[in-house]
Amino acid sequence: MMRSVPGLAEAQAVAPGLSERAAAHDREGRFPAADLEALREAGLLGLMVPERLGGLGASFADYAEVAMAIGAASGATALVFNMHASITGAMARTPDGLLKALGAPETALSRRDEALAAASKGSLYSVAMSERGSGARLSALSTTYWPENGGFRIRGTKSFVSGAAFADTFLVAARADSGSDARGPDESGTSSPLPPRVSYFLVPADKGCRVEQSWDSLGMRATGSDDVHIDASVDSGALLGGIEGLALPLAQLMPQWLVASYAAVYVGVAQAALDAAVAHCSGRLGALPAVRARIGRADAAVAAARLVVLEAARAVDAAPGAAATNRWVWRAKLVAGETAAEVASSLLEAAGSSAMRRGHPLERLYRDARCGSLQPATSDVCADWLGLAALGRDPALDAAEPRW
Amino acid sequence: MMRSVPGLAEAQAVAPGLSERAAAHDREGRFPAADLEALREAGLLGLMVPERLGGLGASFADYAEVAMAIGAASGATALVFNMHASITGAMARTPDGLLKALGAPETALSRRDEALAAASKGSLYSVAMSERGSGARLSALSTTYWPENGGFRIRGTKSFVSGAAFADTFLVAARADSGSDARGPDESGTSSPLPPRVSYFLVPADKGCRVEQSWDSLGMRATGSDDVHIDASVDSGALLGGIEGLALPLAQLMPQWLVASYAAVYVGVAQAALDAAVAHCSGRLGALPAVRARIGRADAAVAAARLVVLEAARAVDAAPGAAATNRWVWRAKLVAGETAAEVASSLLEAAGSSAMRRGHPLERLYRDARCGSLQPATSDVCADWLGLAALGRDPALDAAEPRW
Amino acid sequence: MMRSVPGLAEAQAVAPGLSERAAAHDREGRFPAADLEALREAGLLGLMVPERLGGLGASFADYAEVAMAIGAASGATALVFNMHASITGAMARTPDGLLKALGAPETALSRRDEALAAASKGSLYSVAMSERGSGARLSALSTTYWPENGGFRIRGTKSFVSGAAFADTFLVAARADSGSDARGPDESGTSSPLPPRVSYFLVPADKGCRVEQSWDSLGMRATGSDDVHIDASVDSGALLGGIEGLALPLAQLMPQWLVASYAAVYVGVAQAALDAAVAHCSGRLGALPAVRARIGRADAAVAAARLVVLEAARAVDAAPGAAATNRWVWRAKLVAGETAAEVASSLLEAAGSSAMRRGHPLERLYRDARCGSLQPATSDVCADWLGLAALGRDPALDAAEPRW
Amino acid sequence: MMRSVPGLAEAQAVAPGLSERAAAHDREGRFPAADLEALREAGLLGLMVPERLGGLGASFADYAEVAMAIGAASGATALVFNMHASITGAMARTPDGLLKALGAPETALSRRDEALAAASKGSLYSVAMSERGSGARLSALSTTYWPENGGFRIRGTKSFVSGAAFADTFLVAARADSGSDARGPDESGTSSPLPPRVSYFLVPADKGCRVEQSWDSLGMRATGSDDVHIDASVDSGALLGGIEGLALPLAQLMPQWLVASYAAVYVGVAQAALDAAVAHCSGRLGALPAVRARIGRADAAVAAARLVVLEAARAVDAAPGAAATNRWVWRAKLVAGETAAEVASSLLEAAGSSAMRRGHPLERLYRDARCGSLQPATSDVCADWLGLAALGRDPALDAAEPRW
Repeated sequence: MMRSVPGLAEAQAVAPGLSERAAAHDREGRFPAADLEALREAGLLGLMVPERLGGLGASFADYAEVAMAIGAASGATALVFNMHASITGAMARTPDGLLKALGAPETALSRRDEALAAASKGSLYSVAMSERGSGARLSALSTTYWPENGGFRIRGTKSFVSGAAFADTFLVAARADSGSDARGPDESGTSSPLPPRVSYFLVPADKGCRVEQSWDSLGMRATGSDDVHIDASVDSGALLGGIEGLALPLAQLMPQWLVASYAAVYVGVAQAALDAAVAHCSGRLGALPAVRARIGRADAAVAAARLVVLEAARAVDAAPGAAATNRWVWRAKLVAGETAAEVASSLLEAAGSSAMRRGHPLERLYRDARCGSLQPATSDVCADWLGLAALGRDPALDAAEPRW
Repeated sequence: MMRSVPGLAEAQAVAPGLSERAAAHDREGRFPAADLEALREAGLLGLMVPERLGGLGASFADYAEVAMAIGAASGATALVFNMHASITGAMARTPDGLLKALGAPETALSRRDEALAAASKGSLYSVAMSERGSGARLSALSTTYWPENGGFRIRGTKSFVSGAAFADTFLVAARADSGSDARGPDESGTSSPLPPRVSYFLVPADKGCRVEQSWDSLGMRATGSDDVHIDASVDSGALLGGIEGLALPLAQLMPQWLVASYAAVYVGVAQAALDAAVAHCSGRLGALPAVRARIGRADAAVAAARLVVLEAARAVDAAPGAAATNRWVWRAKLVAGETAAEVASSLLEAAGSSAMRRGHPLERLYRDARCGSLQPATSDVCADWLGLAALGRDPALDAAEPRW
Repeated sequence: MMRSVPGLAEAQAVAPGLSERAAAHDREGRFPAADLEALREAGLLGLMVPERLGGLGASFADYAEVAMAIGAASGATALVFNMHASITGAMARTPDGLLKALGAPETALSRRDEALAAASKGSLYSVAMSERGSGARLSALSTTYWPENGGFRIRGTKSFVSGAAFADTFLVAARADSGSDARGPDESGTSSPLPPRVSYFLVPADKGCRVEQSWDSLGMRATGSDDVHIDASVDSGALLGGIEGLALPLAQLMPQWLVASYAAVYVGVAQAALDAAVAHCSGRLGALPAVRARIGRADAAVAAARLVVLEAARAVDAAPGAAATNRWVWRAKLVAGETAAEVASSLLEAAGSSAMRRGHPLERLYRDARCGSLQPATSDVCADWLGLAALGRDPALDAAEPRW
Repeated sequence: MMRSVPGLAEAQAVAPGLSERAAAHDREGRFPAADLEALREAGLLGLMVPERLGGLGASFADYAEVAMAIGAASGATALVFNMHASITGAMARTPDGLLKALGAPETALSRRDEALAAASKGSLYSVAMSERGSGARLSALSTTYWPENGGFRIRGTKSFVSGAAFADTFLVAARADSGSDARGPDESGTSSPLPPRVSYFLVPADKGCRVEQSWDSLGMRATGSDDVHIDASVDSGALLGGIEGLALPLAQLMPQWLVASYAAVYVGVAQAALDAAVAHCSGRLGALPAVRARIGRADAAVAAARLVVLEAARAVDAAPGAAATNRWVWRAKLVAGETAAEVASSLLEAAGSSAMRRGHPLERLYRDARCGSLQPATSDVCADWLGLAALGRDPALDAAEPRW
């Protein structure tokens, strides 16, 4: 508790502005450009970047604290920030040794450092992974790539790309075109039953990426999670880690970046709902026992979810990718998503019909809060994985759904 | 089961059109004028009007069936219809004997018949009862009236007036101005601790009523439940029943018109959510056990809520105002409101993130469904009343909140 | 509503005695012999027997009303009665035409009439179907039979045989020994992948049946649902319907006798918990809002469950075995089982720690109520089937678990 | 995390024995004498005693860890241990300065040290506070005391005295007899509306205490929480702190000893239920998605409850009695109690009917787990207090029920 959390003071400083703008961003379904500018000026785009590269050098636990603070002010902004933090965090915190063991060349490491340094100077990253139809399952992607002119050509359409219109660079997941020689020399080329080789690329937004403004959703409306149509030629250095096929191993080894980082945002949203309900009910309503009971139970639930997210974050820092860590990651996603939805729904009921008017914080938070459980891995999927793990089975093999 | 339900075939005939327009009405928060026209042309504005006055002569149980069918097509339209049906139903089904016992003059009965006949010809009624601050509690109204020029002058502002901009006539609840002689000859005029005398008036919309387009809500967006500013002079025949102070006795005697009529609408909404989820999940998603379990549990919950609403409606027809009937009325409101909200939330989770896109039926139904528990009497209030009644206490005396 | 329900007055007359003895039967885990005697004297063992055979000629809906009344007095006694009523009801209400179409000889029908007449004279039937390991799945039975001396020899061990020590006759489900010629002339005898041929036998309790007093359970302790070791030789007339392989078709065609008949019992148990809580909380506790809310919500839930069970029962009478009927049957099982458990748990909490003392009705009802969801088909299985049916799939083919 | 938790290794060492005996103790409702002996031999009766007095010097957080470990092995034994630890912990950790500020003489401190030293030598303390009718509310006690022969005479009957028959010393709460001069020189003696003066005494079990074996409960059957009839003469040193009227201030200042210490026990019980369910479902059942989902959700819920209890314990150590600490204490009680009950119920359903047999761990744990929410302060009371605190009100003034 002694050590201060890197970025937390900065997050708390920008929070009031974010909070003030949240209603307007939600109403218009507008990407929170002003919020992004505030985060950039506060240096928070460098939150996960090592200090040697100009960043704040935050741990995953630090990130969770910062994300909760931002999420309590604006859930949508926190989700955009979360994508950026996940990319920079995964780059910063994947050990060099692991990358080398997977075959990463030295040049890939320096390219990565450049990418991180750019973030600390204010460059925004966004994740272009999901696709219509396949959802977030890496194994079912239809975006493909193949070698071309010493680099790669990537083609496909991504959806749910948060902050797409404002991103400087996309992290694009793509599948090696099976007709190409992309599989490299160690494979036979025969039609093997191997899983598809899925690679990550850092694609500059101005290189063959076209954003289609398609986002218009129930909640988290200001994330601008538009579709992105990609037909890009990139140099060989754009291949993340310099290794093809990195996506699935990273998903298995470090699910926190795909799963748990959302969780902190939704604890923030749940906290905001509690604060808004307390403000709304401070008068006559607060004297009603049924209202007090709803607020009291919400208070306990939010406090519990916060602890679970922080514990998961600590586990990620201490033993990233360990089986026990991954269980904490799934618990965090499950508990945060369900708590946010339940708390916001109950508190809206406590506040009564006047809180249903658009523009009332609880009206927006009720919609925002519902999104958490539905983001991958969904609550039902997390429950399945946790059950399998408790039973000593392997979620990677036995789950009701393909895992990634 | 043999006898056909009056109005049900008509409701089923207009339902597809309502359903088709629901998304647009929701998006624009626009009153469903085309829906109203369809209901009018189908003769459904006369649903509750006795056949001798040109109506369909529906019972409360008939109304519940019709309201479920309309609600499944468009919750907002069903709520507007519900207000009209509540006014015409209460007028049609309050026994002449009761009105006479309360002091109603003969002229009031013929005036009522005229009002009912107008409904069967397509005149729309709307309830102007709630006010900001007092909610739906009759005892806390600030709209007042006093005698003037042989009739009455009414002044105040109402909120949550569904369909305000399209209503031909408002049912206005107002409190006798304590400074006036409105209390009549049988009272002393001294500052007694008597409850306020609250009366109902039928006020033509074009006589001193100004609609302020203020409605902009989470769900049920197309009801156009705007504010209405009233400064109206009406003739003496506008006083409902010809009796001052009728509002509280009617609320006590026939709570169904204030409480239970909503319930059927929300069962319709829950059914629509189930149908939309089944359509959405008929492919790959339907093979997932967690999705099936959500749909299966929703199916059972909706079926149960439907039975409760129909049982309450039968009780209202058989013994309106009886203590046992009122318990069914509260049960119907509680069960329908909670079922709709829970079912829609769980089914949205089953359907996944693609169903969160605006325009997807589940996105709208999730917001619409949340409104039921919050409409008065709220779920928490119904639970309190049911608990008191089970314990042999009197909700009118012992409830945690003033009842009306 | 005019017509009186056969057996209901009799059930109400014996209920106070059952209720009075329930605590002692529970404490000692003793079969309720005195209750059985009371039911017998009241003629209720003939409830489902046609009037032409000396019985009361009750429909399934009548049975549901009677079972709720008995269940409210003593859940355990109602479960024993339920087994008897299921056997006699299934025999009485399986149409002769269906049996003949399945191949039943004329003698089987007269044998069935004798069996029914015996019930109306006070003979008790009990179901010997479940086995350890296979649960209630007919397809996994290990009890076998084979032809011997013109009749059949049956051997195996059954568990969960309610009222075993007091039954006059067991309905035994057994699988044709694959080594025998029991499959009859129309089959090849080669090891085909056909489902096992499972037949029902009426086996007199004193013919090779030994009861092992093994029942000692959390709740429903007085059912005496002991193990029965069977090594019996029966004449050919003991084969139910005179047809081998009848069990699976009957389970498919008339699931109500395996699934829904429990449901009414648990609505009775839930009602008893509500009544006990009201009695316990009539003083100081009833003034607490949290207590009232628990009682109010329980009241609504029990009322809803009762309606679902009665609707399912009416559907069974109107169209037994129809797909729509079976969905009502599963809804009834699901809703009744979950309602009983949730209501009893919440009401125990309302009543507080003094209600946890053994001998307090809520202490027993809390344990009894938990058993409903766990009896086959469990709540999770019913939810799966309902989800499949809603999605237009066939629970018999697509369910997560084998159905019977 | 480096520092080892005092007593945890000892608790883990005795746990298997406790676990093995739990079923028998439950069945016979017998106090776990062998467990007590094991705890005594392991030195755990001195857990909360300062090292200078021969104890292990555990903090509240240490206690929580130990109580979870014991609770996972045997809930009933953990509750008996909890009472002892609460008394010794409260004595050990109430600051001397606070006691002196409240008026404690020097002799009271040395007397307290003697009492603590006795615990570290194996003397067992038990709480004799609750009474029939008043529950755990100190303000409603009927046990009284008055000065006699230079000491005190205490008379009354206590209930829910865990481990009564094996306790060496009772902590007795008693109200000053209003007819006596017990109020001391600083009060007028006029019949003032002052709250009753409630004092604590350490009464040797062999001095005028008679245990009546009355305990026979749904769950936690082995605590032997019998009634104790007291008619005791004690010397003046038996008055805790040497100060009359200490009970209410201590309850306000250190609610953790009355409220939160239970919480850890119920997390242990919930963990035991999870472990038992995993063991039970490791075969065929674990392949069923519905079973896995129940186990997965239980896993997350138990993990969350554990974190809440540990956080509350840390807050108690860091700032005992602070408003923020007390909110953590109520959250811990609420979350642990509800989690245990819900988890055990859901897991029993996952395990199926074979787990309902008496002697199966889940059967016992289901009953044990239900007790947590009902122990004071109940879940509903905690929710009310938390709601009041969140709204900035004072639970001591505004709660729906008198607080102590």
